[in-house]
Amino acid sequence: MSPLARPFPALPEIDGCRIGVATAGYKAWTRADVTLLAFAPGTTVAGVTTRSRCPSPEVELCRANLPGGRARGLVVNAGNSNAFTGITGAEACARQVAEAARLLGCAPGELFASSTGVIGVPLPAEKAEAGVRAAFEALGTASWLDATTAIGTTDTFPKAAMREAMVDGVRVTLLGFIKGSGMIAPDMATMLGYVVTDAAVAAPVLQAMLAEANARTFSCITVDGDTSTSDTVLAFATGAAGNAALDTPDAPGANAFAAALADLCRELAQLVVRDGEGASRFIEIRVSGAESDPSAHRIAMSIANSPLVKTAIAGGDANWGRVVMAVGKAGEPADRDRLSIRFGGIEVAARGMVVAGYDEAPVAAHLAGQDIDIAVDIGLGDGRATVWTCDLTHGYISINADYRS
Amino acid sequence: MSPLARPFPALPEIDGCRIGVATAGYKAWTRADVTLLAFAPGTTVAGVTTRSRCPSPEVELCRANLPGGRARGLVVNAGNSNAFTGITGAEACARQVAEAARLLGCAPGELFASSTGVIGVPLPAEKAEAGVRAAFEALGTASWLDATTAIGTTDTFPKAAMREAMVDGVRVTLLGFIKGSGMIAPDMATMLGYVVTDAAVAAPVLQAMLAEANARTFSCITVDGDTSTSDTVLAFATGAAGNAALDTPDAPGANAFAAALADLCRELAQLVVRDGEGASRFIEIRVSGAESDPSAHRIAMSIANSPLVKTAIAGGDANWGRVVMAVGKAGEPADRDRLSIRFGGIEVAARGMVVAGYDEAPVAAHLAGQDIDIAVDIGLGDGRATVWTCDLTHGYISINADYRS
Repeated sequence: MSPLARPFPALPEIDGCRIGVATAGYKAWTRADVTLLAFAPGTTVAGVTTRSRCPSPEVELCRANLPGGRARGLVVNAGNSNAFTGITGAEACARQVAEAARLLGCAPGELFASSTGVIGVPLPAEKAEAGVRAAFEALGTASWLDATTAIGTTDTFPKAAMREAMVDGVRVTLLGFIKGSGMIAPDMATMLGYVVTDAAVAAPVLQAMLAEANARTFSCITVDGDTSTSDTVLAFATGAAGNAALDTPDAPGANAFAAALADLCRELAQLVVRDGEGASRFIEIRVSGAESDPSAHRIAMSIANSPLVKTAIAGGDANWGRVVMAVGKAGEPADRDRLSIRFGGIEVAARGMVVAGYDEAPVAAHLAGQDIDIAVDIGLGDGRATVWTCDLTHGYISINADYRS
Repeated sequence: MSPLARPFPALPEIDGCRIGVATAGYKAWTRADVTLLAFAPGTTVAGVTTRSRCPSPEVELCRANLPGGRARGLVVNAGNSNAFTGITGAEACARQVAEAARLLGCAPGELFASSTGVIGVPLPAEKAEAGVRAAFEALGTASWLDATTAIGTTDTFPKAAMREAMVDGVRVTLLGFIKGSGMIAPDMATMLGYVVTDAAVAAPVLQAMLAEANARTFSCITVDGDTSTSDTVLAFATGAAGNAALDTPDAPGANAFAAALADLCRELAQLVVRDGEGASRFIEIRVSGAESDPSAHRIAMSIANSPLVKTAIAGGDANWGRVVMAVGKAGEPADRDRLSIRFGGIEVAARGMVVAGYDEAPVAAHLAGQDIDIAVDIGLGDGRATVWTCDLTHGYISINADYRS
């Protein structure tokens, strides 16, 4: 288990959502690997998916069905990503979803699906159909922990979070669970993440709020700079809490709900980083003083994706020269002689060189901890960004040099 | 020493160029760490430097002096990159260059300099001046191997190459030496590389030829996706061979010279990859069928920089799914269902899925070797590119998690 793991939180049931898990046997195992969430009629949906040019048929299905704005079911397969499996894989996805729609008595356009695991092996259609039937039979018997465990692959701990918000006098609950630890550099969403709320929120409003939250959370994490073919985050709103539906962005309570959603997404995103393959340290990188916010984001991601920065942190080495290198290669406006850098709040370099009388001892003490803070001021403007990553260790190599075998 | 090392070649003297090396003592060592090349009057020069926004004063000096097109000397310091050292570092660079110009009896604008090593520690000016004086005293006593060794830092073997060309009936020699093994993702040139030829070539022609060669060689390698603050490649043409000067791109013999220069640069670039930190395999990645050559290059670099592809190769794993992932994340036009992938010439995937009757045994045999060949056809157009990289191993982590200490 990752040394950065967090305990699984206590999570309530969400009215309007039932959970079932089952074993399809996508690999030679007995663990649950199919998860079905069934939603009450009237549930709205929003989602963001990978920008990969080679997505899985499940991602394409989500993209096709999201404009409808309605969801009655979600199927998640673990152990097989069904990505790059041609017409065979697309047919297996369609068959499983058709079976789920038949069981739930809804239109196929109200079904959403994800698959995660090895790329290039077609999802076995009969196992997928039998698995979703078994999960349907089990509806109402599984917990959030069961579902979170069943969607995991290389995850070393189950990851979920919860928030509450007051919407126009009604208390609503937002709950999210997520899987992922490698191939993390979401270019829009990350891995597989699901938010379920009992609030009533119109689909276009939920979509706008999720996209906004995504830009500041899931799109601000990276483990290895690699982007999954299957990245998907979906949000479902059952409406069972009984609040007056949030049908415009400025409806009463919309701000509170959007803030709770963004906060939930940030916790989920950070949990993925905490389970980064081989991670021994959690790193927050804050960039200020860039020419614009997007420029600050690109500089921050350049630092977060630098193998030399990440290995230095793994070695407990306050090698701020590598941070300069990563700023320099980002291709964004920067002036060497205005740059300043802090580790754990301690200024190590300012105006283009090491600070006078630099004492490495307190910086080394900060780097001996698990939560590392790097702040870079570019000195040019007001642009800001914060991103999160983990260090790059022998553990990452061990996990990934021998994953398939 | 890297298991991919190549023996140092036999190299002739180049008329019009004398070499001296000396020990400035930039670190607590006795090895030579200052190299001086002295060129005959009339030597022309061309160069390409890093696109880093945070370059060293030495890089800025080269950029300032290149338009003059004339060179009488080159100074290279090893053990200290003098990058991000503010006014103190810039003054040390200027003092060392002024001393070299005084000794050589030339204008400071005819001097070129590079420094490589730790970032953020100002070059000690007095050691730098004394070092270049000692190297001047030693002019004519050092070999190319001495110079190549003296410019190295974390390199595990000295890297040099040679070509000859017939220019308008005169045989000319081109010789290059280079250092680098980490922080390799040159955004224009790589690390420190120097080409010396006895051909007579006008500076603008040499510059055009070097830029063209660079685009297809140094700009096509990556070790870790990190770009140095000090990347510099300089080419010096002494003219001592006596050919009619190549003063236009279509002068007789210009094509032969340009081809030899590009071929020399390719060998030097590949040697850097062969000394990639922790490398156990040399990887050539050829992309065809992209919408354009630049698109093919970006796809190829996306594959070459993917930690998941590089760790799979380190593990001898024909994980072509990760190649698909890297194509998908490149952001370039691609169609999952037209993609085909070959390892070592063996087709493993075509038209969006694994080939029928795929036999992993011959692919595994190819991956057990040291020279790995990955070919990807995008299936959309005529764009092509070839890039080179190495695998990502425990060695890279060990080297970089504890570099400074």
